[in-house]
This record gives sequence, structure tokens and C-alpha cells, in this order.
Amino acid sequence: MREYGPGLEVFMNYKMVVYILGWILKIESVLLLVPCLTALIYRESAGWFFLLAAGLALVLGFAMTIRKPKNTRVYAREGFVVVALAWLVMSLVGAIPFTLCGDIPSYLDAVFETVSGFTTTGSSVLPAVENLNHCSLIWRSFTHWVGGMGIFVFMLAVVPLLGGSTFNLLKAESPGPVVGKFVPRIRDTAAILYGIYIAITVVECALLTIFGMPFFEAACHTFGTVGTGGFGVKNDSYMSYSPALQNITTFFMIACGINFQFYFYILAKKFKQAVKMTEVRAYICIIVAAIAVITINLRGYYGTFEETLRHAAFQVGTIITTTGYATTDFDLWPTLSKNILVTLMIIGACAGSTGGGMKIQRLVISIKTIKKELDNIIHPRYVKKIQFDGQSVAHETVRSTNVFVAIYFMIFMGTVLLISVDGQDFTTTFTAVAATLNNIGPGLAAVGPTCNFAFFSPFSKCVLIFNMLAGRLELFPVLLLMSPASWKKYN
Amino acid sequence: MREYGPGLEVFMNYKMVVYILGWILKIESVLLLVPCLTALIYRESAGWFFLLAAGLALVLGFAMTIRKPKNTRVYAREGFVVVALAWLVMSLVGAIPFTLCGDIPSYLDAVFETVSGFTTTGSSVLPAVENLNHCSLIWRSFTHWVGGMGIFVFMLAVVPLLGGSTFNLLKAESPGPVVGKFVPRIRDTAAILYGIYIAITVVECALLTIFGMPFFEAACHTFGTVGTGGFGVKNDSYMSYSPALQNITTFFMIACGINFQFYFYILAKKFKQAVKMTEVRAYICIIVAAIAVITINLRGYYGTFEETLRHAAFQVGTIITTTGYATTDFDLWPTLSKNILVTLMIIGACAGSTGGGMKIQRLVISIKTIKKELDNIIHPRYVKKIQFDGQSVAHETVRSTNVFVAIYFMIFMGTVLLISVDGQDFTTTFTAVAATLNNIGPGLAAVGPTCNFAFFSPFSKCVLIFNMLAGRLELFPVLLLMSPASWKKYN
Repeated sequence: MREYGPGLEVFMNYKMVVYILGWILKIESVLLLVPCLTALIYRESAGWFFLLAAGLALVLGFAMTIRKPKNTRVYAREGFVVVALAWLVMSLVGAIPFTLCGDIPSYLDAVFETVSGFTTTGSSVLPAVENLNHCSLIWRSFTHWVGGMGIFVFMLAVVPLLGGSTFNLLKAESPGPVVGKFVPRIRDTAAILYGIYIAITVVECALLTIFGMPFFEAACHTFGTVGTGGFGVKNDSYMSYSPALQNITTFFMIACGINFQFYFYILAKKFKQAVKMTEVRAYICIIVAAIAVITINLRGYYGTFEETLRHAAFQVGTIITTTGYATTDFDLWPTLSKNILVTLMIIGACAGSTGGGMKIQRLVISIKTIKKELDNIIHPRYVKKIQFDGQSVAHETVRSTNVFVAIYFMIFMGTVLLISVDGQDFTTTFTAVAATLNNIGPGLAAVGPTCNFAFFSPFSKCVLIFNMLAGRLELFPVLLLMSPASWKKYN
Repeated sequence: MREYGPGLEVFMNYKMVVYILGWILKIESVLLLVPCLTALIYRESAGWFFLLAAGLALVLGFAMTIRKPKNTRVYAREGFVVVALAWLVMSLVGAIPFTLCGDIPSYLDAVFETVSGFTTTGSSVLPAVENLNHCSLIWRSFTHWVGGMGIFVFMLAVVPLLGGSTFNLLKAESPGPVVGKFVPRIRDTAAILYGIYIAITVVECALLTIFGMPFFEAACHTFGTVGTGGFGVKNDSYMSYSPALQNITTFFMIACGINFQFYFYILAKKFKQAVKMTEVRAYICIIVAAIAVITINLRGYYGTFEETLRHAAFQVGTIITTTGYATTDFDLWPTLSKNILVTLMIIGACAGSTGGGMKIQRLVISIKTIKKELDNIIHPRYVKKIQFDGQSVAHETVRSTNVFVAIYFMIFMGTVLLISVDGQDFTTTFTAVAATLNNIGPGLAAVGPTCNFAFFSPFSKCVLIFNMLAGRLELFPVLLLMSPASWKKYN
């Protein structure tokens, strides 16, 4: 009954995996020119190390892409595995200059920082960032920008390399249970996505500069905001910036947590469809409700109502979109407010946005599944399909959403146990896992917004690196990468 | 296409709901004779209030069962709703004597204590139990015994009241995703279950008495152990008992967390099938592994290896079976050991046992679903059914297991938020929810093994009461009770 070709499809398509990884390295070498250029402007010698890394990536990349494989097939398993591998390789290469230039002396720490960057987590091992080189700072922030929309989306937009079946790459990298193509051709979809992304980036950067932020800082923060990452250039994050700058950032963080399909509808002048999007509505409702409750709960913590509202909105925006900037030390907030933030951490932003977490869409599908299960008990003979935005959701999507929740839960508990070996307190261990698995950045207690992750043991750092990658790539690619079955012959 | 009779099946069968509730009240009036008898022996005047409650339950019960409804149909929705209602009514009535006799002056606290009893949670609002009346102490522990195996199982074993369709009652009350009938007739299955249960009870009580525990204390602790509840008669729980008594209790706690199907196989001399049970094997493996890791982690905490091992085994047994006794203050243990206990809290015991939590069987099915989902990505055309104990698991069971995990997760986070209003610290709020939703008893920090739940606000106590009922009845009955759709006409 199998429909495979003669001996071709039973093994992993190794040649294609290597070929695609080569292209990713070539792209990374170009991206590394951004810190090189910065070093040139600020006349920093550290720039040479970034140039060295760029050269290394280029040479490796060329070596791996000399010959295009005859069989360009990329099935789901190749898609998932190559995406997971690419993110790992990108981080291993991207971490080299940090260590060579001495900004992050330990290579493991540098890898942690780079993974945290690409996955848009924003957890840092650095106690202070103000004495870093400008080129290191911009590279840290730029990794957020690249990782936010995804490097494969970029590759698909600019590299005309693959025959068909590139959709599996997009599917493996894009956040959310369902990946929509806006337009029939994947390449055009990818280009539209990057177009919207670049437009938002330019607007935010301009606004921040106009409202008084120095251009270099504005660029770094814009990368961190639109990628929903959270790396900054100041030790106190956003605390010392003016209210106007804080509010602009709040707006752009929340805007980048919206499903990009929304912006596509707006561009295509399909306003009705845009406004009707269930996920976006749910996202806005959750944000408004959370801000309201926290503002009430924080009575008396700040001087004025405006200040309370501003801090509440900024922190809700930063946490639900999993960005991770802070205008205040929310670890000092009352329990209700803190636990709302922890809940928002887990829920996360919209599918198809640059934000992390479990995604609103999964929450909505999950709630609908629960409702259906209860209905099923009440009238067993009368079963409806689950609807989402007026369309019925495929059985596979519902199943894989529920399985996602189960895996999420298990990875969560499993990694809490693993890093418990370090002996940190309950809140620290628990929120360190929540902050990395959901790509937020800061947690509570010893990993709170004014702290960092440097004190963890090398083993725990590896576990948290795994969590960041698993969180950004939404569990399946990373699990498949580690599953021996992926590498075996079909049988 | 509907196959309902003429206007009969479209509404909830209210008459039958009332009739069954009446029988439950009659049974409770008989159960209340246990504390009455105890009061007689110890010549306590508080006994009169228990007799009063028994009388009240009897009168109400008779009034509700005067006429047997013509339509004895109990569909799934009636089954779920009546079970949830019955547990609530039982608790409301069972709490009355505590308040009247003055042992628990606040009625809400008394209801909390009684729900905690029936659901075999063992969380207490009492700072000290040693000055309670004997009849109150035995009633507290006896509710564990009744709730452990389930009052409907008892009813089905002794009351020949219903025509067919009583299986829905058993299904709604019994823990675990699949409810097995050992023998074709439900009444015989129920009788066998209670037979095994009583035998275990008698053996443990005898052993505890032989090894030096006074008979009254042995009876209370046996009820608490075999029901996996956790109410005791001493303020320091099991800390002051001899090592032998602690080890006996460890053994019986773990034994009562095993799926009773196992004992049925043993009775039926089907040893092979007993030994092959996947769930029991997983349960034993998890226990052994947890004890081993904790014993290693606790090096230096206790005087001798024997003492360390004994405390580790007791605490693992008490937490995984969700009993809740303690031989030591495990809140002082290192983080790894504490987090292992928190993980065990959530996993829980076997399905079809008296223990709580999510159940090992759900964990196993969930892991198999995850494996299947990954396999599905690797070879999409080659999909196997999930197997459990050599039989393929019904699609409905897999789906409802995954939905269960999702609901569990949401109730967990939702109720954490609700009780956060009280402003207790993160660990307290988090583990108070874990301890009640999984029917454990103690949590960590302010609800640790040496503390109690009295300080929570009335609102939080109501939330935790909901959690205990939802945990014991496995979410669906309680959700259906609260869902307006259950009470509406089919349409």
C-alpha cells in the first residue's frame, strides 16, 4: 500500500538537509554584516571577530551548497528536522564573536545568549549590558529581529532554491497550529510577511527617534520590540525612558503580538475579515481585562493613575507578547498581579505573530474542544465540528492542538525537575522554565526583571537552551530532532 | 434523525435525580451512626448532634424516595449531574454536626473540612485536632473511607433500586479514563470492589493495632490510609509514631493507589494478567525512581540511611497516592525533592484506585498519543491505533484524555488566579491549588505539612472546595453541573 518511489523516500533526505543548512549559513554571514558595519561606525576592534564569524559561515555555507541535490523533496520530517538543526547551528555560529571579543567570555553563556536572541526569549546571562561593545549590542538585538519572523521565512522570500514542498519548512518554523498562506505562492507569502515586518520596524524606529531616543538605542529597541525579544541596551531596561517612549513601545509590542494575517487583510482592504478574526478579538479582550485588573490591584503602588495604568499596560504587553522589557520591577507587585503575568506568559500572543507562548489560537481551540466534549456527554448523538472564524477546524488540527498542550505540560514539569537539581527556590525554578519555554525573558524571584540567568549550572543552562528552542519552534521540531525514529528508515 | 421517545428524553430526568439523591441521603444517615456509636463509647454529648444530622438525612431521604419514578432512565448527563449534586449534598449535611457541636464553629469551614474528607483530600482548616471530640475525629476519617471507594459504588452494591443504565453512575464517580466491569453485572462488580476494600481495611487496622497503635487511632488512620485521605488524630500527623507503624502505613498507602483491577485479577488467580498491567508497572517504577532520587538528594538531612529511606518512601507514598500524612516537614527539603513531590502530586495514583491526581493511566495514554503524533509526522501514511495492555484504546478515550489534560490545565491556572486575590505568596497559591485539585492535602510554604488552610478568605475557601470536588470527580461531573446546557432541553 506504500506509495514511495524506489528506495528514495524511505530514508531522511540527508543531502537536502545539508543543502538547506548551507543556505542558512550563507544568509547568516550576510546578517553578521550588521554588527560589522556598527563596529566600523563606532571604530570598535571587536568588529573583526564578527567579520571572522561571517567569513566562517560563508565558507561553510558555500561548501555545503556547491551541488544542489537532485532529489529536492522536503517532507514533514525533513522540514521539522532541518528547521530545528538550522536554529541550533545559527546560534552556535552566532555565539562565536561574543566569546572571541571577550564580551561573554564563556562560550556556553554566549550560546545561551544567542539562542535567547534568535528565539526572541530575551533571558540574559549578563549582569550588566552597558559596557558591551556597540557591535555586540546590535547583534544581540538583531538576532531578535531575525528570529521574530523566522529565518526560513526570510530564506523562502529571497532564495529561489527549492522546487516544491517548501511549505513544510514554513509550517515547521511558523508559530501556531494552522499556517495560512495569504497568496497561493509561498514565496509571495513570505515576501509579504517580511514587507509588513520591515514597515512596522521602520515606523517604530522613526517614532522612538523623534520622541528623543538616540538612534542606536532606538534601533536596538525596535529590533527587540518587533521581534518580541526583549534584549535592551540599558541595565534598567525601560525604567529610565520617558513615559512617551514607554507608551510607544507598549503599542508596538502589542501590535507585533497580533496575527500578521490581520495586517494582510488590512493591506488587502478586507477590513471586515480583519475585524472578525476571533483570535485577534480574544487577544485584545485578554489584554484589556488584564490591564484593568492589574491597575485596580496596584492601587497605591505608584503616584498617579496615569503611572499605574502605564506600568500595567507596559508589563501586560511585554509579558503576553513574551517580549520581556520592564518599566518597573513587577516582582514587587502583589500576588494577583504577578500570577496574572504568569498566566499571560503561558497563554502567549497570537499564532502567526512574532510572539511566543502557547498562542491564543490554541487556547480558543482548546476551550472549544472542551465545550464540545461536554456537549457530547449531554447529547451524545448530536456532535458538531469545531468552528473557527466561520470555518470548521480540521480533525488533525484539533488533535495536534490537544497533543501540544499535553507535550507542553510534560516538558514544563520535566524541565522544572531537571533544573531543580541546582537547588534554587520554587518560584525561581518554576518561572525560569515558564520564561524560557514561552520565550519571555524574565521570570520572578532570582530570575526576576532586574536579575539574570548567569548563576545556573552549565547543565541547567543547557536545559533552558533546549526550552527556548522548543518554545520558539513549538515543541515538535525539537522533539523530532531528538527522536531516533526520525533518522531511521521508514518501516 | 433523533431517536428519542415522545417528549420523554429531551429534558433532564429530574424525578430520577431527586430519587437517587434521596437514596444517598438515606445511606448517609446510616453512615452517621458510626460517629454516634463512637460518642456512646466515649460518652460524648456531641454525639447527639450527629444523631440529629442522621435523623435529618433519613427524613429528607425518605421524603425524596417515597415514589419511585416510572422512567428510571439515567443517561450520561443525569449520571454526571446527580453524582456531582450528591457529593455536594452529602458534604453540606455531613458538615452540620461539626458546627453544632462547636468543634468547627464556622459552617463554611465545616463544609470545607467535610468536602476535604469525602474527596479524600485531607486539607484541614483546623490548627489543632487533638482537642476535638472522638466522634468528630472518627467522622472526619470515616468520610475518607466512604469517599475513597465512592458512595455510588456502595449504593450500587447494596441498593437494588435501578432498572438498567446504572453504569453511568459508576462511570461518573470512578476515577480514570476507562471504567472496567470485572464481571457482567454492575452490582456484583460493586460488591467485589467493596469486598476487597473492606478486607484491606481490616488487615491494616489489625496490623497497626498489633504494632502498638491504640485501636481508636488505628481505625482513624486506617480509614485515612485506605481512602488515601490524610486526616489524622495528631497535630504532628505521623511524626511521633514508631518506624514500624510508619512503614506499615507506607505499604498500605501505596497498595491503595494501585488499580483495584489488580486485586481482582489476584483474587481470580489471573496472576499473569495482574503482573502485566501497564499502569501498575508504571506506578511502581515511578515510586521506586522517586524514592531513590529523593534518598540520594537528602544525604545529610537525617541521621541514618534507614531514616532517610523511610522518610523518602513515606512521603513519596503519601503524595503520589494523594493521601497527605507526613512523617517529616518536607517543606524543609531541598528544591529537587520538593519539586519531585509536586510532580507526583499532579501525576497521582492509578485509575480505579482510591487515589487522586491526573492518574497514571492518563499519563501513559498521553505519552502514547504524543509518540503517535510524532510518528504521524515522520510517516504520515502509516498510523497505528494506540495500544494499552494489549488492547487498542478507543478513539473517544484518547480524545477525552487529551481534553481532560487541557481542562485540568485551565482549571489549575484559573483557580490560581482566583485565590491570588488573597495575596499569599506564589508557592502557597500554586501548591494550595495543586493540593486541592489533586486531593492531596498539604502543599508547600503557608499550606505546608505542618500548616492549615484556615487563613484563606471565604471566597478562596469556596474556590478550593470546588477544586476538591472537581478533582475527586475528575472535572466532568462538576463542570456539567455548572453548565447551563445540562439543564436545558435537547435541541
